[in-house]
Amino acid sequence: MSCPDKDPPAWELVDRQSVVTSPIFSVDRHRARSALSGNEHDFYIFHCDDWVNVIPITEAGDVLMIRQYRHGTKQVTLEIPGGLMDPGDASPQAAAERELGEETGYSAQQWHYLGKIAPNPAMQSNLCHSFLALNARETAVQNLDHAEEIRVVCVPRGEIEARIRAGEISHALVVVAFYYLSLFERDH
Amino acid sequence: MSCPDKDPPAWELVDRQSVVTSPIFSVDRHRARSALSGNEHDFYIFHCDDWVNVIPITEAGDVLMIRQYRHGTKQVTLEIPGGLMDPGDASPQAAAERELGEETGYSAQQWHYLGKIAPNPAMQSNLCHSFLALNARETAVQNLDHAEEIRVVCVPRGEIEARIRAGEISHALVVVAFYYLSLFERDH
Repeated sequence: MSCPDKDPPAWELVDRQSVVTSPIFSVDRHRARSALSGNEHDFYIFHCDDWVNVIPITEAGDVLMIRQYRHGTKQVTLEIPGGLMDPGDASPQAAAERELGEETGYSAQQWHYLGKIAPNPAMQSNLCHSFLALNARETAVQNLDHAEEIRVVCVPRGEIEARIRAGEISHALVVVAFYYLSLFERDH
Repeated sequence: MSCPDKDPPAWELVDRQSVVTSPIFSVDRHRARSALSGNEHDFYIFHCDDWVNVIPITEAGDVLMIRQYRHGTKQVTLEIPGGLMDPGDASPQAAAERELGEETGYSAQQWHYLGKIAPNPAMQSNLCHSFLALNARETAVQNLDHAEEIRVVCVPRGEIEARIRAGEISHALVVVAFYYLSLFERDH
């Protein structure tokens, strides 16, 4: 095989320039040098705090999901609650509890960590943490951000795989969370 | 329940400004108006052609994977071949065949479409298409882009789930491809 038999080394960061800054993310242009070739290249990197998402299971055994208009794909999607960690969140779970409450009005007492994932290690620095929240109950009203319009729907647990296969659940990070849930369920 | 019982409507795009343009992606600021509230908000949207990835299985039954330094997370990752569709690619599969050849020197005769996923419908417009390539064989040498340094490794099919659980396979789109593969294998 002509390809290398050792891992490629880390590149040296030689310059970093800010391209965009918004309240929730920034884009930098990183100039980096290869230790193998000595060549330099520019890479655009998206910085953002970590994301969280949560699969809430109601006392009836349904998955509490949300429908909202997404400005990237310009479609209404079927997703699970989640969002960006705030500086005030003491932990990823605290962020997930907050997002669950804000987006649905539900809360839960029994939480499990399902795992973390890199949304895109090629160009994003952040991680997404997935949680399972059991016995979720409606304990408040929605408390949405100005730009959020969210419909809450209950989906039977047994329908999730079919909805992924049909492309109705189409968000990569949501599919990863359900895959992690299937691994968790096999263990428990 | 206090939340709406109908899907929220699409937002009207009222202005679009380019923020960043690079050879492989662009960032626009979209000003959009809610049909429900009439309020306007800015959303940053990342445009990019569709991505493809491929799970190549060798004649020995191993998964052909790649290790490369990723500038987003600044780590060497374990992934599957893939990348951006080029304007010259006649189809997502043609792009996957090209990426497999360039990144590994392998080719395959038997291809299956595993499914598509939205990497991030909140802020990205593109999709990622996943393929399975059976009986992959080394038929050429790697043909890497200037900024690519890729080590090819074979991983037994039976080790994939453990490596996902351990976080060694940590790229969301790669995990989605393997989840799709597990659904495909159950059907075939």
